[in-house]
Amino acid sequence: MVFVRKAEERDREVILTITKAVGVFTSEDVACVDELLETYLHKPDQQEYYFLVACDEPDQVRGYTAYGPTPLTDGTYDMYWLAVTPEAQGRGLAKLLFLRAEEELVSAGARLIVLETSGTSEYAPARAMYERLGYEGRIAVPDFYRTGDDLVIFHKHLRKHGLGQ
Amino acid sequence: MVFVRKAEERDREVILTITKAVGVFTSEDVACVDELLETYLHKPDQQEYYFLVACDEPDQVRGYTAYGPTPLTDGTYDMYWLAVTPEAQGRGLAKLLFLRAEEELVSAGARLIVLETSGTSEYAPARAMYERLGYEGRIAVPDFYRTGDDLVIFHKHLRKHGLGQ
Repeated sequence: MVFVRKAEERDREVILTITKAVGVFTSEDVACVDELLETYLHKPDQQEYYFLVACDEPDQVRGYTAYGPTPLTDGTYDMYWLAVTPEAQGRGLAKLLFLRAEEELVSAGARLIVLETSGTSEYAPARAMYERLGYEGRIAVPDFYRTGDDLVIFHKHLRKHGLGQ
Repeated sequence: MVFVRKAEERDREVILTITKAVGVFTSEDVACVDELLETYLHKPDQQEYYFLVACDEPDQVRGYTAYGPTPLTDGTYDMYWLAVTPEAQGRGLAKLLFLRAEEELVSAGARLIVLETSGTSEYAPARAMYERLGYEGRIAVPDFYRTGDDLVIFHKHLRKHGLGQ
């Protein structure tokens, strides 16, 4: 069985290991994830970053997601990172992580989720998954990350609890 | 005569005063500008944020811009803030600030400039100016800042020195 829980200190190393293992992230990306983890784990009362992990029983971390409120917006949240270890891909863990994050965000009163990704072919499977999960993607800036690597921003409006839609 | 120079410690208060005076920025925006100023003025060897001011002779600050490298990109820079005090608007100061920032960025090897703005009617004059300055704008996320307030991202590719175009 797979389950999702909030990340804890003991997950730090495996989260970074998974980020490296995925193969699409640069060392700068890994450093950025580590910086967010530092805030999430050690800054008291912080409300910037949240981490969830997806685990196989009894408690083996296979993937994670990080999200938080987008600065200067009202009710918009960013999905900052999502990664599933290569051996566990294709089993729906990314979807589980997203659905749990969306649940948490609906409870927190979130209105909109956005996520930034790359337009390269390496990221095509990720983009296809975001679409299946109901996100709409737009090419926001051509050649953003580097020449030939566009910034694609996906967004999804959250439904309020109890509205029945 | 108007001239543009790098911002210094003594400009801090007037930069914040101008930000408030413009009328479109929230107190959260002002706090964000102040945070960037703190890094720019007091963090040694920082390369995240740069501030330029436009001044009337002999040295009265009328407007400013803040920019810096966009994290996780290769050669992309963000124009984070731009403001001109209401009494000095319509005199081309914003354009002067942008042209000087672009010069600095070309020297620094920048490839692309991006800037995020709002899609509301309050920002229509700003968006029109970015277009006149050669930026292309796209609605990246509808209802991003709040319902009815889209995220519009403008971008402009910089030309290399000596290529004659």
